[in-house]
Amino acid sequence: MPYINTKVNVKISREKEEVLKSRFGKAISIFPGKSENYLMLSFEDECNLYFGGKNNIGIAYIEVSLFGKADSASYDKMTAELTKIINEELGISPSAIYIKYEETEHWGWNGRNF
Amino acid sequence: MPYINTKVNVKISREKEEVLKSRFGKAISIFPGKSENYLMLSFEDECNLYFGGKNNIGIAYIEVSLFGKADSASYDKMTAELTKIINEELGISPSAIYIKYEETEHWGWNGRNF
Amino acid sequence: MPYINTKVNVKISREKEEVLKSRFGKAISIFPGKSENYLMLSFEDECNLYFGGKNNIGIAYIEVSLFGKADSASYDKMTAELTKIINEELGISPSAIYIKYEETEHWGWNGRNF
Repeated sequence: MPYINTKVNVKISREKEEVLKSRFGKAISIFPGKSENYLMLSFEDECNLYFGGKNNIGIAYIEVSLFGKADSASYDKMTAELTKIINEELGISPSAIYIKYEETEHWGWNGRNF
Repeated sequence: MPYINTKVNVKISREKEEVLKSRFGKAISIFPGKSENYLMLSFEDECNLYFGGKNNIGIAYIEVSLFGKADSASYDKMTAELTKIINEELGISPSAIYIKYEETEHWGWNGRNF
Repeated sequence: MPYINTKVNVKISREKEEVLKSRFGKAISIFPGKSENYLMLSFEDECNLYFGGKNNIGIAYIEVSLFGKADSASYDKMTAELTKIINEELGISPSAIYIKYEETEHWGWNGRNF
């Protein structure tokens, strides 16, 4: 039941979105027991973002929400992988990419909570 | 002071949004002491969502933010009710609806924190 | 590494967005050790928001995400300042402004976690 929300200030073409979707779907298995089957994704492009007071550079803000917790090693690997994907596919510098992790205790799916 | 953010990949008409607003306003009283009076809602339709690698089905992602905590029974009831509403009003299958709860300790309103 | 997401139901002109950006950049130093250099901002205007069942008033929902925690006094000051800025620049009443704070333990930047 992970969820990844991606906000960037550049344009994401439909083809590129498919590529990101597939690569995120593989990356999620960095977390033990997680797979693309239960991964939800949201992509928001051409957002009004600023970083360090500037908006004339490519910027990405990614939120990864998880039910429960993961270990630090998994978070480290995930940050490295997501940053690599965003950099390679959208040309955004790693120094302008934030990835925030949210651990939650209450998560509903199919009408019930886990 | 609850806040509910609804993201779906289908279209929500203005009339439908009003219906969702009213039903969410009633649902929030599942949490003891909460009412529509202090409920803030955000609706985002036609989002670029994927679930299980697919985007050719109706998908909904709902975030419910609360000041403090609620009991598990209330969360269970709320998940059942919100899923029912989204399914009935937008025709999205319960198996493609995620509801994430966020409990926060610091919340500002009217220039001050609770 | 703070991040501030601003959602309002009114229009934000480009000029106004620049003003908000600059004022938020100063406000962030209310938190010890934080500065505009590492502040990321997102502005979403003309959102479909409701408060207390109404959408015929100006409404603002602001999320402030921080790595780690801050003290209550800083949160209090920040709420006062952000509310003041939104009220002065966008004319939204403090009684229709929510500010939610999120404290997170895992945050990635530049390909690694803090």
